[in-house]
Amino acid sequence: MSRVLVPLAQGVEAMEAVIALDGLRRAGWEVIGAGLRPGVVKASRGVQLVPDADWDSLNVEDFDALVIPGGSEGVDNLKADQRVLAAVRSLFQKGKLLGAICAGPLVLQAAGVLDGRKATCHPAVADQLISADYVNEPVVVDGHLITSRGPGTSFLFVLAIIEKIAGAAKALEVRQGLEL
Amino acid sequence: MSRVLVPLAQGVEAMEAVIALDGLRRAGWEVIGAGLRPGVVKASRGVQLVPDADWDSLNVEDFDALVIPGGSEGVDNLKADQRVLAAVRSLFQKGKLLGAICAGPLVLQAAGVLDGRKATCHPAVADQLISADYVNEPVVVDGHLITSRGPGTSFLFVLAIIEKIAGAAKALEVRQGLEL
Repeated sequence: MSRVLVPLAQGVEAMEAVIALDGLRRAGWEVIGAGLRPGVVKASRGVQLVPDADWDSLNVEDFDALVIPGGSEGVDNLKADQRVLAAVRSLFQKGKLLGAICAGPLVLQAAGVLDGRKATCHPAVADQLISADYVNEPVVVDGHLITSRGPGTSFLFVLAIIEKIAGAAKALEVRQGLEL
Repeated sequence: MSRVLVPLAQGVEAMEAVIALDGLRRAGWEVIGAGLRPGVVKASRGVQLVPDADWDSLNVEDFDALVIPGGSEGVDNLKADQRVLAAVRSLFQKGKLLGAICAGPLVLQAAGVLDGRKATCHPAVADQLISADYVNEPVVVDGHLITSRGPGTSFLFVLAIIEKIAGAAKALEVRQGLEL
């Protein structure tokens, strides 16, 4: 069973966070929404989420994938968090899957793992995605880096991650349950 | 500014609930996620949401729309809650907008407002939707009743509600921000 880590910062885009958590759990995986600081996470537009665990209680090396939701304020918080940037670098070096959506790819960039890689992000922040080879598609897969555009592409993003780790048949099974 | 009430029962489908809350707030509306009982809402697949208010602290008559997320256990809880059924009937009689997605249309049926109306729901529960004229489409609009199929149609569902209340231009504006 794959283990997936989803960092939950204050200001995270609520829909992207919850579609990652619920959607990836539909593959039968253990998915942990980790709060960067203790307590309730104030997500975008007033949605409040209770994280599954505190970031500091987890060992990043135990995870097979790191999936980064967007949200402007949330991504600013992730980019400023050395624990998150170190986790991105560590999993990248081990060839683990890194996913990021919306403004989330800017966290991958801040960690220095996007150089010359094909990636997408929300068009509103595309001018900031300077180290990657930007592609304006709903989902872009470049090896073990999977990026996506915004809330409305979240389901496709989740399905691409499931397909990469568990294969097309599992992704199709989850897709059918979603009524996508 | 429209006011929208979203009931949050234990077992509510997390993605449908959060897409309703965050998505409809993008129209500039006041959207209240109301817990049916005090405390954190344990939504589908372990996602935990902090409601905006307790149901009993609100006056249903203050709202312009009621939007019902799905989730099998959540819908069972809503169908068994006389406060929710009374709210559905009251808003229906006043011609207010009623939205329901996934298994949510079964709550409209339990309240007795679906007789002979065109509606859809998750195909897994379509055989239970006996009072409506079932249509297998992502979103079905019949007057002020808007129904939809499942998590993957949640964005289209939200946009149909915004279009009905605020017009096509506002719906298009929200759609563009979503990157749908």
